[in-house]
Amino acid sequence: MAKLTSRATDYSQWYNEIVQEAGLAESSVVRWCMVIKPYGFALRENIRDILDKMFKNTGHVNAYFPILIPKSFFSKEASHVEWFAKECAIVTHYRLKNDPNGKWVIVDPEAKLEEELIIRPTSETIIWNSYKWWIHSYRDLPLLINQRANVMRWEMRTRMFLRTSEFLRQEGHTAHASEEEADAEARKMLDVYNDFATNFMAINPVLWVKPAHERFAGAVETYTFEPIMQDGKALQAGTSHYLGQNFAKAFDVKFTNKNNELEFVYATSRGVSTRLIWGLIMAHSDDAGLVVPPALAPLHVVVVPIFKTPEEYQLIKDYIQPLIERFETTRLEFPSKYFHDTIPLRRKIDEDMNKSPGWKFNEYELKGVPVRITVGARDIASGMVEVFKRESGEKALIKLEEVDLHIDQYLYKAQNNLLRKNKEFRETHTFTVNSYNEFKEKIEQGFVMAHRDGTTETAEQIKAETAGIIRCIPFDSVEEKGVCVFSGKPSTKRVLFARSY
Amino acid sequence: MAKLTSRATDYSQWYNEIVQEAGLAESSVVRWCMVIKPYGFALRENIRDILDKMFKNTGHVNAYFPILIPKSFFSKEASHVEWFAKECAIVTHYRLKNDPNGKWVIVDPEAKLEEELIIRPTSETIIWNSYKWWIHSYRDLPLLINQRANVMRWEMRTRMFLRTSEFLRQEGHTAHASEEEADAEARKMLDVYNDFATNFMAINPVLWVKPAHERFAGAVETYTFEPIMQDGKALQAGTSHYLGQNFAKAFDVKFTNKNNELEFVYATSRGVSTRLIWGLIMAHSDDAGLVVPPALAPLHVVVVPIFKTPEEYQLIKDYIQPLIERFETTRLEFPSKYFHDTIPLRRKIDEDMNKSPGWKFNEYELKGVPVRITVGARDIASGMVEVFKRESGEKALIKLEEVDLHIDQYLYKAQNNLLRKNKEFRETHTFTVNSYNEFKEKIEQGFVMAHRDGTTETAEQIKAETAGIIRCIPFDSVEEKGVCVFSGKPSTKRVLFARSY
Repeated sequence: MAKLTSRATDYSQWYNEIVQEAGLAESSVVRWCMVIKPYGFALRENIRDILDKMFKNTGHVNAYFPILIPKSFFSKEASHVEWFAKECAIVTHYRLKNDPNGKWVIVDPEAKLEEELIIRPTSETIIWNSYKWWIHSYRDLPLLINQRANVMRWEMRTRMFLRTSEFLRQEGHTAHASEEEADAEARKMLDVYNDFATNFMAINPVLWVKPAHERFAGAVETYTFEPIMQDGKALQAGTSHYLGQNFAKAFDVKFTNKNNELEFVYATSRGVSTRLIWGLIMAHSDDAGLVVPPALAPLHVVVVPIFKTPEEYQLIKDYIQPLIERFETTRLEFPSKYFHDTIPLRRKIDEDMNKSPGWKFNEYELKGVPVRITVGARDIASGMVEVFKRESGEKALIKLEEVDLHIDQYLYKAQNNLLRKNKEFRETHTFTVNSYNEFKEKIEQGFVMAHRDGTTETAEQIKAETAGIIRCIPFDSVEEKGVCVFSGKPSTKRVLFARSY
Repeated sequence: MAKLTSRATDYSQWYNEIVQEAGLAESSVVRWCMVIKPYGFALRENIRDILDKMFKNTGHVNAYFPILIPKSFFSKEASHVEWFAKECAIVTHYRLKNDPNGKWVIVDPEAKLEEELIIRPTSETIIWNSYKWWIHSYRDLPLLINQRANVMRWEMRTRMFLRTSEFLRQEGHTAHASEEEADAEARKMLDVYNDFATNFMAINPVLWVKPAHERFAGAVETYTFEPIMQDGKALQAGTSHYLGQNFAKAFDVKFTNKNNELEFVYATSRGVSTRLIWGLIMAHSDDAGLVVPPALAPLHVVVVPIFKTPEEYQLIKDYIQPLIERFETTRLEFPSKYFHDTIPLRRKIDEDMNKSPGWKFNEYELKGVPVRITVGARDIASGMVEVFKRESGEKALIKLEEVDLHIDQYLYKAQNNLLRKNKEFRETHTFTVNSYNEFKEKIEQGFVMAHRDGTTETAEQIKAETAGIIRCIPFDSVEEKGVCVFSGKPSTKRVLFARSY
């Protein structure tokens, strides 16, 4: 078992090795797409299930729209086509036939579609085309719909979970009777994302409004949450858009308002994807492998019994039986504004005789299982078991009857520690600078708060020279007079710059 | 509110109207695909969540494989291509560009894929291509993986939930070290499906082994469960296949067995899809709309308060408050071999002042909500509420403090009634016949048990003349000598014939 490359040596290589060694994902024969392996998918299921409940608790319902979108739809919303039309998967035919000259199959040239179909890069257009028939009056509003779906944006340079052509996501698409209500929805759903990020992912993102040139295609305002990664870069983890009436106009969706006037509908959309798994790994994991926040862990506790014979194993099983029974009824509760359920303690006894304890220790450390309990024959005599805690790296002998309570407390502590560390890292890696030299130095290390003159040219120049992108105005930024670090022109607010993925 | 066409008048039209009026699904602008609307999707989520837990309780884990499959993979497993290659969605290009002559976008001819990619009609090939790298030794087996995915098989004549180009399904793909273990897995998962059908869908399917000419492409044995619909036809609700070593050979997946010999891996696959919703509707619903088994109902109880002013509504709210609180902690438990959780009582108070009570009554009857409670000002004085039961059509005044217990019991009773009715319908519509004339008469009414000579010619002739297809040998059929109803040749077993969808 080779050790992982350390983060200090090569952060990017370390990431690739974790994804592979922990069994999260791998590239596929269709090289732009990934295979999400069972352990990676279990992480994704936990993320999805919690978010899904949060959406339902805020009044949203799920639905499903077709994966294929007519090509002409991409010309309807003017800015939309620029963003998405460029790289996508295009279906042109609907039949294969046997090659008359060989054993292979070929595309049947006679089965050509009249209009090409695009695998959805996002679903605004096809959904708003349905909303046209669903919305007639203010009585039909708001319409709060969520969809979980695979989408595709052609990517030549793939990176597991961060950037692959096909990826899994949820996309919310809502329709409202007023601008105020729609904008409030977009902000509220950002708050839902932030609640999820903070209390489940144990990350402490900055919330921002995106500058105009970085807005989503067709959006009036784009709200985003971006946590810091261990290399000081920002991750755009998810976005929530207030879309104004742009899509309603493109698809002619009007409603009769309370004054009996016809008006275009106001819209929002939002989404997070399997990219969150990328953020989870990059934010918390260490040189020994994955570190998973207990609120999202596919497995909380693994018991590794040390035995040579079935008789020995039986003794150990009898010994830990009361503990296992207590585990069965243990449920964890994480504080949250939008998720009110408890989570079962997920546990496993690894009794596989084909693998050595050493192999197992390494495996569960790599997979970031928060607690490992080791128990052998000598522990029975002493009434103890050995508990290894992944986040803190501590190892201790604990009395059997105290283990469950101890683990409970440790899981909450580990969750809090991860959040605290991410928050502290962001704070110690956010720099307030007043000169361009300082800017260039600090942007290599983390987030930078600096004055800028607000022109696109300055933003472009800074980006070209330093890779620092304006992540823009954090929700909590205050008025302050100053001069642009680049041009020296006046400015009224500091803006947050960061490199990003 | 127009009434639905009755089943007796036009069963097919009745179905279309239910799907539309109950808000389950609709056809989309991409006419081969459907939009699953929120209420239809809620049904689908309940089906999926229960099945998913059943799979996990039998040791399966979820994973996700790419939606796109290289065209060449369809030539690898010889019989596979014949089944699936004919009608599928083919991706040939990966970029659009602005039309230099107009405002539309066109396919960029320079962005042509070297090898075309097919949207998965099923995933055996792409999954076995991964298994090749995952399986080396008997220690890696069994591999029990499930995937939930959208798949696509080009269909020109669509029917909501029964047959659309894109549909949602789960597909299980397992790998084993022996024929016995793999075949046992295929049979066990049929038992899981049967448990789900019986205890949740409230249908009583026949379990069969498919005849050779109806087997899935590449299968050695195909097991299937088929319930009877109200018109006497059979629905192929789902299949579980023992695949032998066919896919392992096609993708060269070998393992070192315990005797240290290299051997091809044994496989199974299986799946059910949104088609189950079709079966659910066709089996139970009536001329007034949907009838949903309580075990799968998106909503169990709806309360319709009758009020004119906010003050009146407040009085009603206070009155029913204790009942609502009891509902909040009510959980339902349905007997099952593979699902051991409870289900929360799903309830809603419909306080929408924009809709009349009459409109709401009709709406919830159409949607098949098992229990409707109506409560007005005069009920407060009497201490009663009115309870309407969808399955039995009964309406009764019940004491407020007894309502929750009453509803609990009724939900179990309704679930049992639906199952009993479906079982009785199958029994009274399964005919044992001994002549071809009798066969032709009875096949119009339901299932027919008849002797046949076992030749493909006879099967084809009977099918051509009567639309009766051999659904084949039910698991519980017994040896019995006789003569083929068609050819008069000898036979040792009766076989089940039915028309099907």
